[in-house]
Amino acid sequence: MAPTVLVHGSGAIGSIYVYLLIKAGFSVTAVCRSNHDAAKANGFLIDSEKYGNNLRAHPKIVRTSAEAAQQGGVFDYIIVTSKAIPEDKTSELIAPAVTEGRTCIALFQNGVGIEEEFAERFPHNPLLSVVVYLPSTQIEPAHMRMGNFEMLQIGSFPASAYKEKVGVKQAADTFVEMLQKAGSNAKWFDDVQEMRWRKLMLNASWNPVCALSLSRDVAFLASAPDADREVGALMMEVVHIAQALGYSSVNEETQVEQLKRAKDRVGGEGIEPSMLVDALNGRRMEVETILGNAVRTGRKAGVAVPKLELLYALAKALDESMLYRQPGQSLKGTETRAERGKTNAS
Amino acid sequence: MAPTVLVHGSGAIGSIYVYLLIKAGFSVTAVCRSNHDAAKANGFLIDSEKYGNNLRAHPKIVRTSAEAAQQGGVFDYIIVTSKAIPEDKTSELIAPAVTEGRTCIALFQNGVGIEEEFAERFPHNPLLSVVVYLPSTQIEPAHMRMGNFEMLQIGSFPASAYKEKVGVKQAADTFVEMLQKAGSNAKWFDDVQEMRWRKLMLNASWNPVCALSLSRDVAFLASAPDADREVGALMMEVVHIAQALGYSSVNEETQVEQLKRAKDRVGGEGIEPSMLVDALNGRRMEVETILGNAVRTGRKAGVAVPKLELLYALAKALDESMLYRQPGQSLKGTETRAERGKTNAS
Repeated sequence: MAPTVLVHGSGAIGSIYVYLLIKAGFSVTAVCRSNHDAAKANGFLIDSEKYGNNLRAHPKIVRTSAEAAQQGGVFDYIIVTSKAIPEDKTSELIAPAVTEGRTCIALFQNGVGIEEEFAERFPHNPLLSVVVYLPSTQIEPAHMRMGNFEMLQIGSFPASAYKEKVGVKQAADTFVEMLQKAGSNAKWFDDVQEMRWRKLMLNASWNPVCALSLSRDVAFLASAPDADREVGALMMEVVHIAQALGYSSVNEETQVEQLKRAKDRVGGEGIEPSMLVDALNGRRMEVETILGNAVRTGRKAGVAVPKLELLYALAKALDESMLYRQPGQSLKGTETRAERGKTNAS
Repeated sequence: MAPTVLVHGSGAIGSIYVYLLIKAGFSVTAVCRSNHDAAKANGFLIDSEKYGNNLRAHPKIVRTSAEAAQQGGVFDYIIVTSKAIPEDKTSELIAPAVTEGRTCIALFQNGVGIEEEFAERFPHNPLLSVVVYLPSTQIEPAHMRMGNFEMLQIGSFPASAYKEKVGVKQAADTFVEMLQKAGSNAKWFDDVQEMRWRKLMLNASWNPVCALSLSRDVAFLASAPDADREVGALMMEVVHIAQALGYSSVNEETQVEQLKRAKDRVGGEGIEPSMLVDALNGRRMEVETILGNAVRTGRKAGVAVPKLELLYALAKALDESMLYRQPGQSLKGTETRAERGKTNAS
């Protein structure tokens, strides 16, 4: 029997894996929220430079993981591609679809420190941490436009579980094999956290910088004084944390390489990091997992992160202002979460 | 004969001095831009906790300083209260109304390094640098709401001019006397630059922090992690620059005092610094005079300003994004000032 896969969060990233896995012959259920009706009516439409245009995928569509479980779904794998926002308590959202000791949970998310919530909630399930490189945008509900690149960096959480915990090796090997068979450029890492910090270099700098300035990467490079130096310095603070954790391959050389990717785009329109897209649409931003956890890890390791600390405070307040302020107005002191909490409690 | 005064930029700040000076018997002309028609029709309406409600002022209203000069105006003083934005070339805008060797120019503006432009353009005129503390908002065209506080800190530019340059002492003494007579809490300083750096502590931190996070001061304090520490650290970078310049009264004690002013407002709605008001209304922000000149002065003095540098880059890009991007969109690399320059030149 084909492995069963639940994809939790079928947006720009998740839908691509829905497509690939169905094509490879697997049984796929997709949890859709904002794009539920469009996906239910017509499936997913994907225009991809890598895989081809006008591709269609018709997974089983549900609104929640609970709905998938109620319909009798038992899953070998759950791929989580929803945003990594601690308050969303995603571990609770997927819980109904998790079979203890069987379902392997794979987190296709940005940031660091994202795994603990799932490791605590599901101590007896294999847990995989996955770093995704995949330029893709949902241009209208259930319609994706994808670029010419796809890469997954996969490891177990914790790293030692692959060798030490029963069932992890088998679930992990099958998962990587399955993705590779599906057409993904998936690679296994003995300690994928190092790759997570390498990507964080990019996410912790460009994401909030673009969201706060409402500018695409190359527009920021053109508009701000010493823009490349500032972004480079933010990346280097991430490098210093990673080095303190022993991840020697996250270094100045990789920083220069990461910055160069944006510099090479100068002359074009530039790209919108996900946090900028969220800011433009008034949606929650992954501030805690991308900046908060980095700052806390840096402090704990005794690394100076003055610029990341400021960026974290600014992004956090902007995120809250999007939640609670009136459109076109500033967030008032009486409108903050803390004040709302008081009102609710009284 | 009563001294003649031209107030260039009669918004929330300028209009209050228009009112005070008329009341004290001076001949006042007001340059109005966005509020010209309302001021021309009904004069200024001021509701002030300090001076009283429903106050009216009817100065001579013009659209430009050039218009004031064309109508035969010869001015003993020009008070400049427009925003300090280098690209506006305000020195050129007021030039037609400046009588060489006679007109004393008083800059009622925020930031540092704002005086050079005027000193170079009008080397034979007395030049006064004025730090303004005055909570006032234009709630509709030509209608101001003012709080219960007003203070001016006045000095000559350069500081030595008061003693060394012909005519400065007399112009300055008369100016301070005239303002005091008008009801202003105006004070003379032998080196007002020290007071400018003291106020910059406030402007270089709260202004951009609130503009970037779209949050009022107390909302930022409530929303961002370690918010008070971040704002305090930004203020301390300004303190370090001021100390390097020899301004010993701008120190950690004044920093704590400045931060306390916002902390004391917790529980209320909070205030909107001018840069936040500008950001909400898509208007230019005083980024160069408030942050750019501070960063450049800091670097020249060998002072580390890592957080101010990042804040400067973010605020500058946000300012440019407001100018050139489509509403609701991000600034594209092809829309920046640099790219527009190219298009215009080709």
